[in-house]
Amino acid sequence: MLTIGFDADDTLWHNEAIFSMTQEKFRELLAPYHDRAWIDAQLYATEMRNVAHFGYGIKGFTLSMIETAVELTEGRISGHEIARILAFAKEMLAAPVELLPGAAAVVSELARDYRLLLITKGDLFDQETKLARSGLGDRFHQVEIVREKDAAVYAAILDRHGVAPHDFLMVGNSLRSDILPVLAVGGQAAHVPYAITWQHEAAAQPASETPGFYALTSITEVPALVAWLQNGK
Amino acid sequence: MLTIGFDADDTLWHNEAIFSMTQEKFRELLAPYHDRAWIDAQLYATEMRNVAHFGYGIKGFTLSMIETAVELTEGRISGHEIARILAFAKEMLAAPVELLPGAAAVVSELARDYRLLLITKGDLFDQETKLARSGLGDRFHQVEIVREKDAAVYAAILDRHGVAPHDFLMVGNSLRSDILPVLAVGGQAAHVPYAITWQHEAAAQPASETPGFYALTSITEVPALVAWLQNGK
Repeated sequence: MLTIGFDADDTLWHNEAIFSMTQEKFRELLAPYHDRAWIDAQLYATEMRNVAHFGYGIKGFTLSMIETAVELTEGRISGHEIARILAFAKEMLAAPVELLPGAAAVVSELARDYRLLLITKGDLFDQETKLARSGLGDRFHQVEIVREKDAAVYAAILDRHGVAPHDFLMVGNSLRSDILPVLAVGGQAAHVPYAITWQHEAAAQPASETPGFYALTSITEVPALVAWLQNGK
Repeated sequence: MLTIGFDADDTLWHNEAIFSMTQEKFRELLAPYHDRAWIDAQLYATEMRNVAHFGYGIKGFTLSMIETAVELTEGRISGHEIARILAFAKEMLAAPVELLPGAAAVVSELARDYRLLLITKGDLFDQETKLARSGLGDRFHQVEIVREKDAAVYAAILDRHGVAPHDFLMVGNSLRSDILPVLAVGGQAAHVPYAITWQHEAAAQPASETPGFYALTSITEVPALVAWLQNGK
């Protein structure tokens, strides 16, 4: 019997869109100092430098925005402008969880017959509160919030749940975090793209004939894929 | 056979001391604007207001320091002073993990005969990197990093691991997070105080005759308590 892992951000609910909207506000805030492309490039550089200290999530992103604002203004940024960035963070944290079309129905349908795991990276606090607000919490056998989604982490999760890789299907929008490391440990992975991909998550798509790789266009195609896999293809 | 839960911060390694040192630097930074007592009171008020948005941990504490600095200076804080606060955060995140006296020996000894769980709240990223740096990671059967340590969370952890409350002993420094909720679900709890208690974690100590409550003075007393409990008292 298959065990099915679902990614959360941008697979079950909108996430990158909230970061993009905030980044647009950040560009406007710093528009008197620099052009947009330079602001974006510096923010991304700060985020990449800080991810080893801060991990993923809204709090780390906010600290990176503040650091970028201080650097790009050579310290001339005002306390009032810093307060605006803090307000962006609170708006992000309070943003409603907007489920993607079909996500609730697919998860509910599959939960009746399969063991579902939610496997997400990022900030524990953000992810737990989003899951609670999504209303989908009780569909999952277990929630795994991890620091990074690489092959070693997937291997440890499968081991802990006693799941053989060939009995595991991961569903997610990130080739880098949801697809490639799962294929690397011998599992199966269904890619459901999201409209926007964070630069850091971009990766080349595996060749379509790669064993265990399934390129879908919508989460609503997952039940048919599961049925086909379960019936021995 | 007992299952033993250990808290991490200020039970296995120093933590509050790092926050205290940072808060001292924060007071010095704002000393031109306000007196120390007022700075402390305002920072604590900001932290308590933000904990529902940010959860526990260094990143949330840093955002609260920045917010307090903007408020207490009525926006007059400079970008350079904000950069100092960001530097405090990076120093905290990079601080070495200093084990408390006896912690490594006690954990290693008990791990030979008992199933140990690490049960800690706070930031997933902080806690995982601290555990990795502590060198104690492989002594624990499972690491549970949770959003809040209350009775419901302990009940869920015990349920997930198939442990009856009377077969569980929790060891920790916080009456509020490690002791009272464990006693509330029918478990046993050993209190090992730390030199400093964060105001938010303060709580009244249970009466010494409370069933299942053990007031110790050092973690080095835990193995003898465990042996006594295991032998039917």
